[in-house]
Amino acid sequence: MSQVRVHNFAVSLDGFSTGDGQSHDAPFGHAGGRLLEWFFQTRTFRQMHGEPGGGAGADEAFARTWGPGIGAEIMGRNKFGPQRGPWEDHEWTGWWGPNPPFHTPVFVLTHHPRPSIEMEGGTTFHFIDATPEEALRQAREAAGGLDVRIGGGPTTVRQFLAADLIDHLHITIAPIVLGRGERLWDGLEGLEERFEIESVTTPSGVTHMTFTRP
Amino acid sequence: MSQVRVHNFAVSLDGFSTGDGQSHDAPFGHAGGRLLEWFFQTRTFRQMHGEPGGGAGADEAFARTWGPGIGAEIMGRNKFGPQRGPWEDHEWTGWWGPNPPFHTPVFVLTHHPRPSIEMEGGTTFHFIDATPEEALRQAREAAGGLDVRIGGGPTTVRQFLAADLIDHLHITIAPIVLGRGERLWDGLEGLEERFEIESVTTPSGVTHMTFTRP
Repeated sequence: MSQVRVHNFAVSLDGFSTGDGQSHDAPFGHAGGRLLEWFFQTRTFRQMHGEPGGGAGADEAFARTWGPGIGAEIMGRNKFGPQRGPWEDHEWTGWWGPNPPFHTPVFVLTHHPRPSIEMEGGTTFHFIDATPEEALRQAREAAGGLDVRIGGGPTTVRQFLAADLIDHLHITIAPIVLGRGERLWDGLEGLEERFEIESVTTPSGVTHMTFTRP
Repeated sequence: MSQVRVHNFAVSLDGFSTGDGQSHDAPFGHAGGRLLEWFFQTRTFRQMHGEPGGGAGADEAFARTWGPGIGAEIMGRNKFGPQRGPWEDHEWTGWWGPNPPFHTPVFVLTHHPRPSIEMEGGTTFHFIDATPEEALRQAREAAGGLDVRIGGGPTTVRQFLAADLIDHLHITIAPIVLGRGERLWDGLEGLEERFEIESVTTPSGVTHMTFTRP
């Protein structure tokens, strides 16, 4: 059975996974890059953006697990872009340029479906208005037996956790107090009982936690 | 100058430091002992309760720093006991029996002052209605040049952090989602900018974080 996985998903000490005030110029709102500093320094991130170098230690080992075995991604609309409500800017094709780093079908959850967008490099964005269960059914079909990644943001990850659809959750705790934004953990009391949990702090100062099914 | 220190203070992944529904039989509310499991297994905790054994590794090394150099403690009323409003049960002298583990003056913050209580072993409880600054002034005077520990609960630690009165903060992140209770981090956005922070995960699965003044 293919797995449903979350990778490299950052949370602040106070439980926020994105800041307040997302906009075109601030994809993470007032959090800026602070939640993902550890990730920006990895070889995996650099390669995604065609840059050389990057660390090859524990952070990289975790970051690298993001891609292999994944056949489709599901993301929330706020991860795809800053627009809200009916689509007005039809030219917007995501934050990632003409060749997004996904290289698989990507299902964008939205109450406003629109035609699919085929990008370079194998990424196709599909826009669907669906429950987590139905979105997962479609993504699994598109993934051809491979795993499905839940790409975020916080609302989407939270919904899939609440529906008990996630098999592997990798989060990083950033040592910052964001104060406001979107919370990951709301409504997930007792989540730890469903998973085996392992934690490790790396020299960058973040703590990686993996939640896997027993 | 004497330091103001917090030790062995547990926080859940979602930022709660005590559970919902504190009572005589449930000092941590619905959290039970889950936030402090790592601590119960240390030699320091066992000795506090006259029991043999206990771990001697990294958890113990952190736990042990709780006592040395401390000349007074400040605690919130909810740490002292489950009563709310005007004192009705004057027989109540805390959760800790006739010989509490503090062995110093302890200042209990309350809107309902009452006469001090002298316990065995050097602990005296003083009940004061004071701002954090004024409480600290009194505790410093009583501490005779030694450090002052802020003993909790979450509201008290948060108030002292908000007033920028804490020099050393040691917290442990427990890998649990409590869902409800009292939050530590509210109103402390950007706290990390005032401190140097170091994190380490120990084999018990908790992550110890120390916040110290640069």
